[in-house]
Amino acid sequence: MAHTIAQIAEALGAKAFGALDLVVNGAAEPAAAGRDDLALAMTPAYGALLVKGRARAAVVWPDADWKTLGLEAAIIAPRARLAMARLTQMLDQPLDAAGISPHAVVHPSATIGADVSIGHFSVIGAGTVIGRGVLIADHVSISSGVTVGENCKIHAGVRVQRHVKIGDRVILQPGVVIGGDGFSFVTATPSNVELARDTLGNVPLTPPDDPVWHRIHSLGGVEIGDDVEIGANSTVDAGTIRATRIGRGTKIDNLVQVGHNVVVGEDCLLCAQAGVAGSTFIGDRVVIGGKAGVADNLTVGDDVVLGGGTVVLSNVPHGRVMMGYPATRMQTHLDSYKALRRLPRLLRGLSKA
Amino acid sequence: MAHTIAQIAEALGAKAFGALDLVVNGAAEPAAAGRDDLALAMTPAYGALLVKGRARAAVVWPDADWKTLGLEAAIIAPRARLAMARLTQMLDQPLDAAGISPHAVVHPSATIGADVSIGHFSVIGAGTVIGRGVLIADHVSISSGVTVGENCKIHAGVRVQRHVKIGDRVILQPGVVIGGDGFSFVTATPSNVELARDTLGNVPLTPPDDPVWHRIHSLGGVEIGDDVEIGANSTVDAGTIRATRIGRGTKIDNLVQVGHNVVVGEDCLLCAQAGVAGSTFIGDRVVIGGKAGVADNLTVGDDVVLGGGTVVLSNVPHGRVMMGYPATRMQTHLDSYKALRRLPRLLRGLSKA
Amino acid sequence: MAHTIAQIAEALGAKAFGALDLVVNGAAEPAAAGRDDLALAMTPAYGALLVKGRARAAVVWPDADWKTLGLEAAIIAPRARLAMARLTQMLDQPLDAAGISPHAVVHPSATIGADVSIGHFSVIGAGTVIGRGVLIADHVSISSGVTVGENCKIHAGVRVQRHVKIGDRVILQPGVVIGGDGFSFVTATPSNVELARDTLGNVPLTPPDDPVWHRIHSLGGVEIGDDVEIGANSTVDAGTIRATRIGRGTKIDNLVQVGHNVVVGEDCLLCAQAGVAGSTFIGDRVVIGGKAGVADNLTVGDDVVLGGGTVVLSNVPHGRVMMGYPATRMQTHLDSYKALRRLPRLLRGLSKA
Repeated sequence: MAHTIAQIAEALGAKAFGALDLVVNGAAEPAAAGRDDLALAMTPAYGALLVKGRARAAVVWPDADWKTLGLEAAIIAPRARLAMARLTQMLDQPLDAAGISPHAVVHPSATIGADVSIGHFSVIGAGTVIGRGVLIADHVSISSGVTVGENCKIHAGVRVQRHVKIGDRVILQPGVVIGGDGFSFVTATPSNVELARDTLGNVPLTPPDDPVWHRIHSLGGVEIGDDVEIGANSTVDAGTIRATRIGRGTKIDNLVQVGHNVVVGEDCLLCAQAGVAGSTFIGDRVVIGGKAGVADNLTVGDDVVLGGGTVVLSNVPHGRVMMGYPATRMQTHLDSYKALRRLPRLLRGLSKA
Repeated sequence: MAHTIAQIAEALGAKAFGALDLVVNGAAEPAAAGRDDLALAMTPAYGALLVKGRARAAVVWPDADWKTLGLEAAIIAPRARLAMARLTQMLDQPLDAAGISPHAVVHPSATIGADVSIGHFSVIGAGTVIGRGVLIADHVSISSGVTVGENCKIHAGVRVQRHVKIGDRVILQPGVVIGGDGFSFVTATPSNVELARDTLGNVPLTPPDDPVWHRIHSLGGVEIGDDVEIGANSTVDAGTIRATRIGRGTKIDNLVQVGHNVVVGEDCLLCAQAGVAGSTFIGDRVVIGGKAGVADNLTVGDDVVLGGGTVVLSNVPHGRVMMGYPATRMQTHLDSYKALRRLPRLLRGLSKA
Repeated sequence: MAHTIAQIAEALGAKAFGALDLVVNGAAEPAAAGRDDLALAMTPAYGALLVKGRARAAVVWPDADWKTLGLEAAIIAPRARLAMARLTQMLDQPLDAAGISPHAVVHPSATIGADVSIGHFSVIGAGTVIGRGVLIADHVSISSGVTVGENCKIHAGVRVQRHVKIGDRVILQPGVVIGGDGFSFVTATPSNVELARDTLGNVPLTPPDDPVWHRIHSLGGVEIGDDVEIGANSTVDAGTIRATRIGRGTKIDNLVQVGHNVVVGEDCLLCAQAGVAGSTFIGDRVVIGGKAGVADNLTVGDDVVLGGGTVVLSNVPHGRVMMGYPATRMQTHLDSYKALRRLPRLLRGLSKA
């Protein structure tokens, strides 16, 4: 994908200096860059590495002295990662769009839009509607009665179960499961979970009269908004009598669990291995750090940030930054943590006194 | 799936009032219910929402004044979630049972029971036995020598490796992996893990003489009891020289890890992203909360409840409710936590004194 | 797989006693062993169980009185688990190597080495190179332009995306995803994450001007070293402009997440449900316990051990043993924890005084 420095700068909305017609074929880290690469050196820390590499052109930090760094051309990007987004979008090779494989099984009652690709051994169920421009890779299972919007990318081995509606421009990474049955069971008499909650754990639990778990079926499916992306092997369960919902523009990382009946708002980030338990409501623009979890039947407000590893056990108001297990405001958590670190010495002092 | 109010009440073992022959086609939340839906309003909080929706019939809480709520018929369910279980079972559409796909590969030496469905591109290995009434979806891999009991549901993309026995009425959600090799490795000389344990971390670790990990193979397979359900993308590893076992009636959520040689008892719940490390024994009726973990080679007694996010690092006696990292009795955890929250102020007081 | 005691002892580099020509067909736990099994009783705790079983031969602990235990033959192994490794390797049945399935789709431009097996419905992309002796199971997707070294085992349902290089003797358990796109997004103006970091959470977050997440594409792929093993349903994301790397000899358990741009060194262990966030560097011989996590853009030195459930939020020097959330030296963590357990009583004392 050859581009001139001028073309790249224009696409990035950035300023370019030096040999504007120099052509680059790819992007690389400064030390590893070859003569035809555009090196990405967006902070001063990369200056020394730039000299080690062979790049003639680089994206550099705002006040870099690019000539001294040995460059023939430079692009200056005020917001480095935003430039990275535009640049990597320019340089990426589009996925193969090879039409509908003769090895795919598409049910005759399915509706397939224009310019759709369906990979080898993929299965499209009865009555399913696939929008225009969708790329479906190999080994994908899309059940009957599903709706997929336009220009989605559904990678290898994705499973979409019944009662699922997917918006436009949705990206599902390999192994994603949408619409598996919710984890919803009930005993005929109070279960150990109910007893533990009622007694706050102060009474030893004994075998309940009837420990059999009865299954609550999932009839509600899942709705995925436009511009959502879901990472490899993540799972979004079907709702009970209404859909589990992922809002427009929300991005979900790998190995994330979204339980049945959950509603996740718009423009959220759910980082790797995060989990949201059943029937919890997550607001808009919420960021859930890696490995963080939110218990069931809670409400997390808009513009909340949960640090990595945080475990939320109660409702969180709008705008809060939370950390810890159980989650508290970040400052409260830091205060407790610092105090805890001082505590052993304090106790040693008290035992001497 | 049309049913009269009388039919539903009978199936639920509940009492019905009003227009018993009114017909409903589905279930819905109160505010979203249409004229032909049965609204589910099992606590008084739903009363106001019921008035907003269009439902003519609802399942309501024990002393609800259903006429004032504008209903023509009502069902009163003493244990709301149990009613939900029976109701959703009634209303669920059965999965497609389309027989054996011409695109499946079934080894000639496999034994396939009556009324079995095998989906497109599924593979059944040599000598494998599939019981009567089993539904196998698309893209399922069942290895050679496996036994699957009767009336199981095996969803898309499930992988069942060698040496696995599965009971009756087992449900495997999409992407489940049963019988992957255990994570079991050993170095020829003491490894960093052994050194850390022996020194309690008080001596800096240095490169061991021989850091190569030798692989312990998994010969023992997995046994899954009757009425077990396992959630999407969860993994149950094969045992070393005997089977890893999941007891009858146990339900496992999504993205759960069960390590090699683990024994999980009967009627347990393992919530999403929980993990049980190798060779640990879990009793009967144990509930492991979301993201909770149990370390290797431990014993957790019967009727134990582990709160969400709990990390168990030592044995747990019967009947305990545990929380925290490391896990302690719930009350001990709450006491420590409350004390920790008071500590910063205490330390400020001491530093002034 | 019948072997004499003498053959097994020789393979184990161990000493044998008694009936050296006695033949065994498999290995078993002492109590469950039949007459033709080799019982594994590597610690004195297994002595009593040995008497319960029917084994005539056993691997026993160093100073065991094997005749009194009723055995006809015994093998004494100085390092029990190492013996287990060699023994289970001997007794394991090799996987089926049935050649290339007529139901596989191998692109004409792919290069397939000698003695390669490719299972039913597997897909090999354009230009991909598969080394000699590789076993690819059913339902595997290997994208275009991938390189796979010699003698690898790629189990059912593995997904290998573009730009991936895999070394020799690599084992990928079912459902592994290599080279999914990295989770890398940026907003045009400061996001809630940036605001939370800048304000330490002391200012309530409000809706940002432009909450849209722009996608940074992943062009860098993944490189997996020789002798790496990766567990079921684990995910390793592609790097941005250079490869994410897993070093030679490193073993990764099930449901582990390795983020984009991460470098994991050689001979590491990453236990189940561990996670390493984007652009973090992990040294050689590092052990990451189950459910432990390392935040993004950090460096963890060589010979570090992270206990189960540890959450690392800052750099870790060589040789450290770490525990807790956030991770501290093991001793510091234990001191804090013990002090915390004493704290409630201390506070009760102070309130009385």
